[in-house]
Amino acid sequence: MLDAAAVVAQLAAIVGEKYAFADPEAMAPYLVEWRGLYRGKALCVVRPGSVEEVSRVLTLANMQGRKVIPQGGNTGLVGAQVPHESGDEIVLSLNRMDRIREVDPLSDTMVVEAGVTLLRAQEAAEGADRLFPLSLASEGTCTIGGNLGSNAGGTAVLAYGNARDLVLGLEVVLADGRVWHGLGKLRKDNTGYDLKNLFIGAEGTLGVITAAVLKLFPRPRQMVTAMCGLPTPAAALSLLGRAKAVAGNNVTTFELVPRLGIEMSVNYMGCRDPLQGQHPWYALVELSSARDEGLEGALEEILGAAMEAGEVEDAVIATSLDQRNALWKLRETLSEAQGFEGGSVKHDIALPLACIPQFIEECNAALEQAMPGCRPLPFGHMGDGNLHYNVTQPVGMDKQAFLARWDELNRVVHGLTARYGGSISAEHGIGRLKRHLLAEVKDPVALEMMRAIKATLDPKGILNPGKVL
Amino acid sequence: MLDAAAVVAQLAAIVGEKYAFADPEAMAPYLVEWRGLYRGKALCVVRPGSVEEVSRVLTLANMQGRKVIPQGGNTGLVGAQVPHESGDEIVLSLNRMDRIREVDPLSDTMVVEAGVTLLRAQEAAEGADRLFPLSLASEGTCTIGGNLGSNAGGTAVLAYGNARDLVLGLEVVLADGRVWHGLGKLRKDNTGYDLKNLFIGAEGTLGVITAAVLKLFPRPRQMVTAMCGLPTPAAALSLLGRAKAVAGNNVTTFELVPRLGIEMSVNYMGCRDPLQGQHPWYALVELSSARDEGLEGALEEILGAAMEAGEVEDAVIATSLDQRNALWKLRETLSEAQGFEGGSVKHDIALPLACIPQFIEECNAALEQAMPGCRPLPFGHMGDGNLHYNVTQPVGMDKQAFLARWDELNRVVHGLTARYGGSISAEHGIGRLKRHLLAEVKDPVALEMMRAIKATLDPKGILNPGKVL
Repeated sequence: MLDAAAVVAQLAAIVGEKYAFADPEAMAPYLVEWRGLYRGKALCVVRPGSVEEVSRVLTLANMQGRKVIPQGGNTGLVGAQVPHESGDEIVLSLNRMDRIREVDPLSDTMVVEAGVTLLRAQEAAEGADRLFPLSLASEGTCTIGGNLGSNAGGTAVLAYGNARDLVLGLEVVLADGRVWHGLGKLRKDNTGYDLKNLFIGAEGTLGVITAAVLKLFPRPRQMVTAMCGLPTPAAALSLLGRAKAVAGNNVTTFELVPRLGIEMSVNYMGCRDPLQGQHPWYALVELSSARDEGLEGALEEILGAAMEAGEVEDAVIATSLDQRNALWKLRETLSEAQGFEGGSVKHDIALPLACIPQFIEECNAALEQAMPGCRPLPFGHMGDGNLHYNVTQPVGMDKQAFLARWDELNRVVHGLTARYGGSISAEHGIGRLKRHLLAEVKDPVALEMMRAIKATLDPKGILNPGKVL
Repeated sequence: MLDAAAVVAQLAAIVGEKYAFADPEAMAPYLVEWRGLYRGKALCVVRPGSVEEVSRVLTLANMQGRKVIPQGGNTGLVGAQVPHESGDEIVLSLNRMDRIREVDPLSDTMVVEAGVTLLRAQEAAEGADRLFPLSLASEGTCTIGGNLGSNAGGTAVLAYGNARDLVLGLEVVLADGRVWHGLGKLRKDNTGYDLKNLFIGAEGTLGVITAAVLKLFPRPRQMVTAMCGLPTPAAALSLLGRAKAVAGNNVTTFELVPRLGIEMSVNYMGCRDPLQGQHPWYALVELSSARDEGLEGALEEILGAAMEAGEVEDAVIATSLDQRNALWKLRETLSEAQGFEGGSVKHDIALPLACIPQFIEECNAALEQAMPGCRPLPFGHMGDGNLHYNVTQPVGMDKQAFLARWDELNRVVHGLTARYGGSISAEHGIGRLKRHLLAEVKDPVALEMMRAIKATLDPKGILNPGKVL
């Protein structure tokens, strides 16, 4: 093995002096996961400025058998983008590849490079009077490359799908430096295997995405938002069914929040209690449409019928953008708000929609049995079957003592999730955080295929080793 | 190699006497492509009744290195489902696996086996007050397995996507008999590589799909349909843009037909000319919605503005289901109608939407130069960028002499398609028909990846050999 200085020199010959470095201070931001969950070391950081440079970097790394960690905005939640502690890995940051190569409103497409932040991609679409619907809490920092590598979810999945559903074409550099020029702008193309979806969601373990053709949509001209108080998750499921029956694909948001979550956002985040009384459960429902009429009527029809059926106890419809934002804030501040109540064990599960009410009942009971007094906080994208089934510590318990039982509580939630045919990672991915769980929850043949494909596309195992698989 | 009788005996031991046979008469329907384009031979036909039987059949075939041709409803248009002429291949028909295992309207999913016809799948959804939107001309005969193997398109892609977009989970038997139990009902699952999309559209070359979890949608409660007369394809593109801006994802159909196509349907298929005058181009536009109001207004807004801009010369809005069906018949009978004008060279291309007007102009000119008097008939799913760019023979030319120049006309259309970043197979697949074209149009690295994945998942090359790759 060469020492760091020699590797840096070789990489600098490809990307320029400024963009290959091993200086600890310069490397620091690339080595730490933003919540501090993982702190890695690296041989060096390299920041190529073009697909050709990425190709030459990987050709070199592959020849030398050197490990490479692709990184976008470094906002991932499962540690996929952070190097290990060994110090022999190269961080390949895509943050210089930040051009929007084309916006084509007639074809409803845009071509963006991996390092473009999600926010800039959204703004570019908006500039052409179009919508790019992917939307996440970290959108100001996270990048398209990371969004695709992790198949990001977010708040618009119900109507527009996950990140993978928003992609028409990809440019990818393979482990050995070969470049797949797959930036097609086509809605239909049945000329062979679907390679695109292999790389999306592979967390940088099969290839490095350098650019993508993204789908654009008409901008919504109307949007109506309600916060509903509900007696049970079963009532929420009925309400969701009503909403879809009446408003179809105009239902763009259906988020579930338990009373405990509302209280946290009210107590710690400066939110106002949205309804006069208190209700065991809340649903944030939003309809939107490119058509500029009719949604209020649809929302009233949905809520009226649901109230008559006893599913909705009370509801407020936002009558201004400020009011809408206030309702959304109750949901969006929830992750942060939990911190004020002590430790919180996180989950990101998906379930078949129909199972959700029974699952919540069983899971809460199992959690209470495992740790009396713990406070389950199942909230999130119920419309997608995706709950962030977090568990807040019992009142008064020592935070560290609570967090020490992370794995145990994980086992309760994940075990039940598996029994219901669910997923232990709905939208955040596997990375390092859940890698040890994969063998338990995944079909063995699926795992064998994953390993075989990894070995085929990256035979030396240089791309993001020890992540996912 | 064993002789046919011995193989049949081994297979009969798995599936039962009745369902493994080499009798020429019994085999006949499995050996011929429905238009007579391909007539194959086979060692025998086997019809397993369960995933376990499929697994045992493939285990045996793989051990013996015997080639297997998976077949659904045998309606494919590129010969993927028909055995070669060698006579040493086993046709594996999925037509006995025709159970609808579950319909779950609360989760908006259903689980169907590969041999279920598309029509039965649609009816099962309807029985639960849901829509399964995939819709094709052959829906009474084609099967879900074939639809997924070929990633079928059809008439609802604009709003609902291709077949692959309608699938949540798969059950697949690999070449060596291993079974991937991937029938998840989840909208979100980021636990590893997306294996599902590898098998969808692989035309049975990577594995045999035995069952699938399909997405269900709310049934539309309102539908409005118009036939518009237009001066140019550019006007059609503008009209499509207007429709999407006003009605967003309520635009469920946008089909383009040139005057020649309307004339064929009128002259030979008993259709009525839809508008009083004649127009160079026609667009069939349909909006549909789960909401039961507002679409007429939206359609009128779209057409009014388009007429004012001179894009639409005349239009008729259907005021009854009969009228709607009459408008659709103009489009749906077009494939058959062409036969009455002599030979027709077929294409199934996709283009970036914005390129379509210029492409049509250039392509028609190039065709006229290649064969003066030939009659281009670019029609089809313009909303998806997918045109069936067929070419009808010059009036009075000998049909056989015309068809003898099939490859030459193909080269004109496909060459230009490649230059525009298009696809030579938008929805029909590659099969045998276009296999020889793949190397010319496909990115070389994509082809290398396809071959590597094929070798990984089917190392002995027993699954549908000589198709696609």
